[in-house]
Amino acid sequence: MKIIRNIVELRQEVKQYRVTSTGNGKVGFVPTMGFLHEGHASLMSRAHDLSDLVVLSIFVNPIQFGPGEDYETYPRHEEQDLALAERQGVDIVFIPTVEEMYPTQTLTKIMVSEVTQLLCGASRPGHFDGVTTVVSKLINIVQPDQAYFGLKDAQQIAVLQQMVHDLNMNVEIVPCPIVREADGLALSSRNVYLSSEERKQALVLSRSLLEVKGTFDSGESVNVSEIRKMLIALINSSPIAVIDYVEVLTFPELDRINDDVLLHDITGKLIMAVAVKFGKTRLIDNMLITPKEAVSLV
Amino acid sequence: MKIIRNIVELRQEVKQYRVTSTGNGKVGFVPTMGFLHEGHASLMSRAHDLSDLVVLSIFVNPIQFGPGEDYETYPRHEEQDLALAERQGVDIVFIPTVEEMYPTQTLTKIMVSEVTQLLCGASRPGHFDGVTTVVSKLINIVQPDQAYFGLKDAQQIAVLQQMVHDLNMNVEIVPCPIVREADGLALSSRNVYLSSEERKQALVLSRSLLEVKGTFDSGESVNVSEIRKMLIALINSSPIAVIDYVEVLTFPELDRINDDVLLHDITGKLIMAVAVKFGKTRLIDNMLITPKEAVSLV
Repeated sequence: MKIIRNIVELRQEVKQYRVTSTGNGKVGFVPTMGFLHEGHASLMSRAHDLSDLVVLSIFVNPIQFGPGEDYETYPRHEEQDLALAERQGVDIVFIPTVEEMYPTQTLTKIMVSEVTQLLCGASRPGHFDGVTTVVSKLINIVQPDQAYFGLKDAQQIAVLQQMVHDLNMNVEIVPCPIVREADGLALSSRNVYLSSEERKQALVLSRSLLEVKGTFDSGESVNVSEIRKMLIALINSSPIAVIDYVEVLTFPELDRINDDVLLHDITGKLIMAVAVKFGKTRLIDNMLITPKEAVSLV
Repeated sequence: MKIIRNIVELRQEVKQYRVTSTGNGKVGFVPTMGFLHEGHASLMSRAHDLSDLVVLSIFVNPIQFGPGEDYETYPRHEEQDLALAERQGVDIVFIPTVEEMYPTQTLTKIMVSEVTQLLCGASRPGHFDGVTTVVSKLINIVQPDQAYFGLKDAQQIAVLQQMVHDLNMNVEIVPCPIVREADGLALSSRNVYLSSEERKQALVLSRSLLEVKGTFDSGESVNVSEIRKMLIALINSSPIAVIDYVEVLTFPELDRINDDVLLHDITGKLIMAVAVKFGKTRLIDNMLITPKEAVSLV
């Protein structure tokens, strides 16, 4: 496994690979902010299955954090990250410094409208401009065939797919399933912030999403407003949960649906997406449901 | 010379070239809006000198025109363009339709701040967002090593170089000198709009720029404000000239300079840039001056 810290060297390495594989080898890219967990491991594993050369990047991107957010305190542990990457058979780890990625203040921003206006985009203004800008920088540096992202950040996937489509970027965004602890908690580098009591309370997220999905899967006729109300009531059963948002939207378009629309009248995928604070830590979780499929199973 | 109208085919063609040249052949790209003239021809000629495979694109990009601008009437003449491209030894001409480039409304915009805020950016709000967005789409499609642009649109070059730097795009923006008619008029596809009287009056632009440059080159000590006033007075000697802007800025940063700064105290390049309407037609022109060099010649 090669560890590369500068852009020129990374480019040379990937170019060399392209030449030796006579253009047939696929380059898979897993961009991360480090502090890697089994969720990230599953992305690398998927990259191993679908791509030939696997490039992992570790970069805590300052421009996707707002003022007062956790950029400074975001957890970092390079040694541990490298061990996990090695174990997952990663070929190249790219770890640039902030100066390497932003030698001067960036005057250029990539902005995606509409799909960035709700959910985390509404709660964290400017966040997705920072994400799309850095991801396109990284994609321009690595020039991969596929880039792998976890569905826990479902909106991020929707936004990136829109960008790649609109800008004719020569890469496929590959969404990968959420990885959960045995007790249901979605893996996140930010889980480390939780006290043991907060961690226990945070289980309400996956439990609520699963319960509502269960109600729906059982064939019960519910509308969008009822689904949302059920989720809110279930999450509020935790005394310390403070809801940021609870939304039911189409996926990946992230369009709002009228309150009175019955779920089993909807074609295509839906996402139930939640963001909830436990103490100082804001966690997100979501679940996809495919109404038509579910109904046909009953 | 191959004429290609769809993105998938263009990509295959360039990829094939990369494989057969085992990654050593350079791909040069000349993006244009067509109605080609000797200015464009000089870009193709430069691409021939520096690159191995020359790709020309012809696309009148709707999203860089504002409401009420000349998108619908912008001159088009495909047959003539293809003949010129053939004569210049272009290898591939890419002529996509609007539907091919924008199958759905683009939600993604690339926005460069600061360098887009003055000159044509101030007169044509949104113009440069349209330019940066379409140029990055085209660059993502063609994936060239070099892209050639004329210095008549000097601000466009400054903006694109900023974008390429900020987004780590793997392409070199190559600025090429302005090409002028024998009488000094800078070549432009929009010159076709001019009546014979307007065309005659429009010569005031190059004449004014040259005269001011001459004053400066002769070693006379002038400051930024005097240079601008001289330009304004000279241009206004044409009874039909309506000035949009007359600016003296650093290049390529496009920073404003205090009025009282003497030109021969400045290090680096300056640009004198003008935009002037003759009848309904808005023309731009500019001239670069390098104070320190000029002074050392005296």
